[in-house]
Amino acid sequence: MSRQDAMTTLTPAMPAQAPHERLASYLATDLDQVNALIRARMASEHAPRIPEVTAHLIEAGGKRIRPMLVLAASHLCKYQGEHHHHLAATVEFIHTATLLHDDVVDESAQRRGRATANLLWDNKSSVLVGDYLFARAFQLMVECGSLRVLDILSNASATIAEGEVLQLTTAQNTATSEDQYLRVIRGKTAALFSAATEAGAVLAAAPEDHVKALFDYGDALGISFQIVDDWLDYGGAGAGIGKNIGDDFREGKLTLPVIRAIAAADDEERSFWERVITRGEQKDADFATAQAILARHGAMESTRQEALAWSARAQEALTALPEHPLRDMLNDLADYVVARLY
Amino acid sequence: MSRQDAMTTLTPAMPAQAPHERLASYLATDLDQVNALIRARMASEHAPRIPEVTAHLIEAGGKRIRPMLVLAASHLCKYQGEHHHHLAATVEFIHTATLLHDDVVDESAQRRGRATANLLWDNKSSVLVGDYLFARAFQLMVECGSLRVLDILSNASATIAEGEVLQLTTAQNTATSEDQYLRVIRGKTAALFSAATEAGAVLAAAPEDHVKALFDYGDALGISFQIVDDWLDYGGAGAGIGKNIGDDFREGKLTLPVIRAIAAADDEERSFWERVITRGEQKDADFATAQAILARHGAMESTRQEALAWSARAQEALTALPEHPLRDMLNDLADYVVARLY
Repeated sequence: MSRQDAMTTLTPAMPAQAPHERLASYLATDLDQVNALIRARMASEHAPRIPEVTAHLIEAGGKRIRPMLVLAASHLCKYQGEHHHHLAATVEFIHTATLLHDDVVDESAQRRGRATANLLWDNKSSVLVGDYLFARAFQLMVECGSLRVLDILSNASATIAEGEVLQLTTAQNTATSEDQYLRVIRGKTAALFSAATEAGAVLAAAPEDHVKALFDYGDALGISFQIVDDWLDYGGAGAGIGKNIGDDFREGKLTLPVIRAIAAADDEERSFWERVITRGEQKDADFATAQAILARHGAMESTRQEALAWSARAQEALTALPEHPLRDMLNDLADYVVARLY
Repeated sequence: MSRQDAMTTLTPAMPAQAPHERLASYLATDLDQVNALIRARMASEHAPRIPEVTAHLIEAGGKRIRPMLVLAASHLCKYQGEHHHHLAATVEFIHTATLLHDDVVDESAQRRGRATANLLWDNKSSVLVGDYLFARAFQLMVECGSLRVLDILSNASATIAEGEVLQLTTAQNTATSEDQYLRVIRGKTAALFSAATEAGAVLAAAPEDHVKALFDYGDALGISFQIVDDWLDYGGAGAGIGKNIGDDFREGKLTLPVIRAIAAADDEERSFWERVITRGEQKDADFATAQAILARHGAMESTRQEALAWSARAQEALTALPEHPLRDMLNDLADYVVARLY
């Protein structure tokens, strides 16, 4: 259940011109300007370590999903100004800052197929460069000149951090509820997606029903994406997806398939979960046993249905918006996120 | 050269009613409301780890110097609203967040005479709770409703983080210049002092010359404070100040006394500094040798004079403001900061 750069792991298995690629083509001019702004603002004349660390991560081939959500939302709402570029750079900086801090917290060694910054430099640099990027994001937002946009992003930042702390304290806790899980994944993934789409609409002074529709879309898309990710970690769609499986199990993370299997556990299964999750005492065969228990209780299938339901909710939200090529691409993106479930 | 909770180490040696105590008496009603706001906003219904970690630090007896600077500046400029409490809580949250991250970066074991949060909980909690407090600070600021205040604080946040990264990269670098040193201590201490006083004035819609005067006061006060701190670390005023000395030397930090001694070094001294600072090869007698070299070149005395000059600059800035009991207390505070030099 690590925070992913959304969709990066998918490209090899999918045909060219996946929805995020069509978005990137459609928004190419904007994206060039966003990338130029990102490069300009990650600079630091006096502390060259900052752009070194930032570039390592930001130029490693992320798909810029969050900036594209800002740009798509603002265009869907007929925005005419230039500040959507600032807002798009803002969400990418916040995302990058959270990745830097995540990798320190998770003691990760790899991210996007490259050694992490905490490994290449040190934890200190990751913590402090992350703080710098938060501050830079905040400056970019102030330039947008909208207190309501600032309100949305400050609330999202608090939700993100709260979700991360909650995840720390629910790890290895078999009493974790589905409500707590939802709060964790909202923080991990959905809060920045929904802030991106909502703030893009607010910047464009869109009517309230369009603002709400775009918030709901981002929220449901993010939740769907993270549930799929957590499902895949138990081997959901079989092999061949280029993803290591079993990481969440080994780290004792309480994700939806396990929460549902624990709710349905008999006494023997309960002892199993207590041993492998609470006490973290794992043997080689335990992951296969866990998979068998998940299958027995239908926890994998019900988790899959949950992800599909959130994807459908994202698409339903879009129906409140006027017809537009970007609306169709966002609709397809919600399909694309759950395509990994098949 | 660790970031200090300004003035906490002084109280035992000074008579009652030091300037910060007179400020606290004068601002008592405001401070009660600021403390209530801090307690309310550090809460997290869903992640109780957050208030636990925050309370450990925030209730450990910090003197609330930064909130008092906000309150004093806003009252000096005849502010009539309630948002100075939000702004005061904001700067305390930003300060607390930086302390949490500092202690991770410095691998500190003690802060304000107690075990640090990274030791009592873990580095993960310190990083993430720090992020949460930054987000909460940002929300409080948005509630103030002033884009100019947001601009000041976002710039200060970037200066703070940039200074911290610069300090990482100048450590053990004997080529560090006085300009770089000034940039580091502005980030470490002065940027939040000057943002507190400037933003307090801006919130009160003060005339520009008063805004500038209060910015200059906070900036010079912070610089003076940090230079004194760095001077004391080489045993400046002898024993009896309840401060460990030699920490900066052992960590290879380039503070003003050393930068000046290196600038005046002969060949033999240069090899000494290369060995103890650049290569970090230190023997028991080296700190005493360093102290002797600093004395020989007058580096301690010239550093002392530099701190006095910044304190005088802080007081000079105040003369642009109208007479007020708070102006007198801020003036005395600038004396108090350098009282440790005697």
